[in-house]
Amino acid sequence: MRYSEMHLPTGREVPSDAEVISHKLMIRAGMIRKLTSGIYSYLPLGYRVIRKVEQIVREEMDRAGAQEVHLPMVQPAELWQESGRWTFYGKELLRFRDRNARDYCLGPTHEEVITDLVRHDVKTYRQLPLNLYQIQTKFRDEVRPRFGVMRCREFGMKDAYSFDADEAGAEKSYQKMFTAYNNIFRRCGLKYRPVEADSGSIGGSYSHEFMVMAESGEDAIVFCEKCNYAANLEKAEIARPEKTAIAETDPLPMESVETPNVRTIEEVSGFLNVSPKQIVKTLIFNADGKSCAVLIRGDQEVNEIKVKNVLGAAQLELADDEMILQATGAPRGFAGPVGIKTRVLADYSLMNLNNMVVGANKTDYHLKNVNLERDFKVESYADLRISRPGDLCPRCSGMIQFVRGIEVGHVFKLGVKYSKAMKALYLDRDGKEKTMIMGCYGIGIGRTVAACIEQNFDQNGMIWPMPLAPFKVIVVPVNINEPAVMKAAEDIYAELQKCGEEVILDDRDERAGVKFKDADLIGIPLRIVVGAKNLANGQAELKIRKTGQSTLHAITDLVSQVREIIAAEMHNAA
Amino acid sequence: MRYSEMHLPTGREVPSDAEVISHKLMIRAGMIRKLTSGIYSYLPLGYRVIRKVEQIVREEMDRAGAQEVHLPMVQPAELWQESGRWTFYGKELLRFRDRNARDYCLGPTHEEVITDLVRHDVKTYRQLPLNLYQIQTKFRDEVRPRFGVMRCREFGMKDAYSFDADEAGAEKSYQKMFTAYNNIFRRCGLKYRPVEADSGSIGGSYSHEFMVMAESGEDAIVFCEKCNYAANLEKAEIARPEKTAIAETDPLPMESVETPNVRTIEEVSGFLNVSPKQIVKTLIFNADGKSCAVLIRGDQEVNEIKVKNVLGAAQLELADDEMILQATGAPRGFAGPVGIKTRVLADYSLMNLNNMVVGANKTDYHLKNVNLERDFKVESYADLRISRPGDLCPRCSGMIQFVRGIEVGHVFKLGVKYSKAMKALYLDRDGKEKTMIMGCYGIGIGRTVAACIEQNFDQNGMIWPMPLAPFKVIVVPVNINEPAVMKAAEDIYAELQKCGEEVILDDRDERAGVKFKDADLIGIPLRIVVGAKNLANGQAELKIRKTGQSTLHAITDLVSQVREIIAAEMHNAA
Repeated sequence: MRYSEMHLPTGREVPSDAEVISHKLMIRAGMIRKLTSGIYSYLPLGYRVIRKVEQIVREEMDRAGAQEVHLPMVQPAELWQESGRWTFYGKELLRFRDRNARDYCLGPTHEEVITDLVRHDVKTYRQLPLNLYQIQTKFRDEVRPRFGVMRCREFGMKDAYSFDADEAGAEKSYQKMFTAYNNIFRRCGLKYRPVEADSGSIGGSYSHEFMVMAESGEDAIVFCEKCNYAANLEKAEIARPEKTAIAETDPLPMESVETPNVRTIEEVSGFLNVSPKQIVKTLIFNADGKSCAVLIRGDQEVNEIKVKNVLGAAQLELADDEMILQATGAPRGFAGPVGIKTRVLADYSLMNLNNMVVGANKTDYHLKNVNLERDFKVESYADLRISRPGDLCPRCSGMIQFVRGIEVGHVFKLGVKYSKAMKALYLDRDGKEKTMIMGCYGIGIGRTVAACIEQNFDQNGMIWPMPLAPFKVIVVPVNINEPAVMKAAEDIYAELQKCGEEVILDDRDERAGVKFKDADLIGIPLRIVVGAKNLANGQAELKIRKTGQSTLHAITDLVSQVREIIAAEMHNAA
Repeated sequence: MRYSEMHLPTGREVPSDAEVISHKLMIRAGMIRKLTSGIYSYLPLGYRVIRKVEQIVREEMDRAGAQEVHLPMVQPAELWQESGRWTFYGKELLRFRDRNARDYCLGPTHEEVITDLVRHDVKTYRQLPLNLYQIQTKFRDEVRPRFGVMRCREFGMKDAYSFDADEAGAEKSYQKMFTAYNNIFRRCGLKYRPVEADSGSIGGSYSHEFMVMAESGEDAIVFCEKCNYAANLEKAEIARPEKTAIAETDPLPMESVETPNVRTIEEVSGFLNVSPKQIVKTLIFNADGKSCAVLIRGDQEVNEIKVKNVLGAAQLELADDEMILQATGAPRGFAGPVGIKTRVLADYSLMNLNNMVVGANKTDYHLKNVNLERDFKVESYADLRISRPGDLCPRCSGMIQFVRGIEVGHVFKLGVKYSKAMKALYLDRDGKEKTMIMGCYGIGIGRTVAACIEQNFDQNGMIWPMPLAPFKVIVVPVNINEPAVMKAAEDIYAELQKCGEEVILDDRDERAGVKFKDADLIGIPLRIVVGAKNLANGQAELKIRKTGQSTLHAITDLVSQVREIIAAEMHNAA
């Protein structure tokens, strides 16, 4: 296209609410505009990138045997009441009434609608397996929309739902999607990683997140330096340590110490002159209304998701003062395992510890030289803490490292959560009625675009990987008023177009500096600069946005050079 | 694709609310499913057709220089308050509040959002003209959703908005869209017609509807048998008749006649033994709060849109009893022009009439032999009636005919209605601030698909024109358990796929009759039947869905035959 005819309003200003680089750059490059809190319009440049992601997603979903459908955004309350989510889903579910005062919501996800669709049309095992997907608009009324299109309220999503006759089939469907997702993010030209994840409130048994690596990412990813293991922080497992024969010192007699106004681990450590590793924290949780104490070494943090999973609890929160008083006989802040009146779980970090310091269940007192078995018992040891760099890999002997990422995709094994509640049944080979087994698979389209920017930018703007670039080449005549320069630029532009390459001709009557700045800002991978001096030698300059590398080429050679680079980069991602 | 792997639930049952053939067939062919009143899911077969329409729309919009954007579905009340439509738009505008109790609506159209977008980013004449389009989901809370996806609440629409610096530019933008729309509907393989239309409540000065011809169409289309003139019924103009020197009889003395319980034209005609053509109806309207009488010949009907336009009224309705009493001195049912106390407009149909019968403005009385000028005066003559077959063309000497159609597209010249209200201004060459001139252009995507079916079906099902066919060919092995038959079918299928043709292999273990019925129902243009008998002669049957014509071909020849037919039909529509 000709730049002069494009609606591409670039600028320097960034809105005050733009915290992350992708948000700033998408505004500055004229990709998006905010309509209202968490709701954005895509301008032509932005929507071109969206369509590229969508196209790759479609091709890979189709290749994996999924079939495209299109489900409504406005959904009747009845289906959500049937699944139980009408009451359980929080305020993110935007509910409203139509002109006839019937209850509806804007779909934040489509498990209910798809399950309803499939239960009506699928009757026998011969119609299974089935995987239906759509690329469609979702709405989630986020409490704090932020980061531009990364965490907004209205957004485009690819969501797919698989239906299988049995567990083996469901596993196969999951693996197909896992493979498709790898293909998608690789073809987008992204550095990404699938990581093990907790299934969370959507339900189900097993899931992976697809993370785009970026320093600005909201999520911490745990991975092993030696093997393939990777997980998000919530899920990251910690290997059960070997029980060593003996800790460093012999058990000493337990001792009660007055510790006035000493509460935090740091304070206890300083007051008693012991390492935080020798102190044990005792946290009292309320799990579905019942108390439970969790013990963990003073230098570690509890992972509540793990506690919840180990307890099999639906709801888990820190206990209130009354529950703490009941369990420990003392107010908040002095809990300890000795004599406690509730079940006690211990993190693996306690396994090789003796002569611990613990709370005394008594105001302003701690106990020293406390020893497991002798002084208190635990119901079981479990992996209850948050992973840290340097931990041992749960799969091999490697060491755990951390990196940051942005979640762009998520694959879930849902099991029968929805098909059971909504009676999505089929007749098997023996004529017996069975419940379908489901999986669900999402990709945030706009978020993938934003994540790509978070991974690929410099101080001058965005740097698109070739597969997602809105245009692959920009031809910049240094001065459009010099006829020879303009003609050469037009010729190169026409030839690239004829070859089917996506190219912009910057035919604006602007200074070269302005054009270069815009080309850098919008991140076009290849820039051809046509100037009078080089043209006199039959040459033009080719600059690679990513490396900044600039080379002179014979104009006769230029188009084939450019096409080779494009083909090579597209091939690398394919 | 293999039929056995497709989610294509065909059936015989039609829902009780399915009144039109497209609705019935889309359900039976497994294209759509109803989620709730006026809200439908598209199944894979249906969505394939949707995507074909979208693709044609995109290509032609891009070719016309429009640029694709994507605007939000959820829109803040503030913008609608600014344009004034928050209060004026009826209950079709679905309003709701978010978690922070702020007012929003679901976009039924996007004039407000696009005008807001453009006013922020377009500052000078150099950025104009501009045409931005999107293909996006709309919601209109219809009082009576019906006809499946033809008049539903949630639907996909292509909407485009042009912004120009002056009238000449706006006219050019309109013409570009007019051409693009012709290209789109021709390329869809539809028999359609652009017709002049009233601009209606969206505002603006000038518009055309694009109508797909179908007997079941909701709209009557008026066209001239001789020239190009075509309009919808609301808009259809009637030529001003020549004033003839004299009517058939000389003016007779006016006479008052008692006509007890005689009210309708038929009753007056029978009671007084005069033709309805001699009787004049007097209708009292309330135009923006003021009364106005409209006279029309007894055998004709008033077109209220024309009355409204002639009066320049914002609101027009039939007057209530009080207004009638004030204007005529009599209760409802006896109004006449003689002595009436309000402005009087006469339809052209009165121009060559004398010795008329009119209401007497007195209960149970009519006046006979009433003559214009002598007995009453009119403010002006105008075209105020509904067009009828046999009327004279307003453009030439031809005769008006009627045909039925379905509106699938609409192009509007909006003028400055929104740009003025919302201050979409730009600086012209002289640095003066001016208001942008807008146009808007819509195509109902789902409705185009339904209209195509209304135009192309028979008792066995749908008959897709080649460009919109979800698949172009279906290969039907008569019996999949005969290895030679199945192999031949597989080979043909593979060869067609290799050539990039969209083909289904009906590999289901079903009777041939069942397969033929499904192939007819889903309307695949070309059917290849592979049976043992013909195969023994190296032949297979090719059946054309549209004509029912069936021919035998050498299998070695078949694929090239099929490809020729496809290419020819695609070319005809291109």
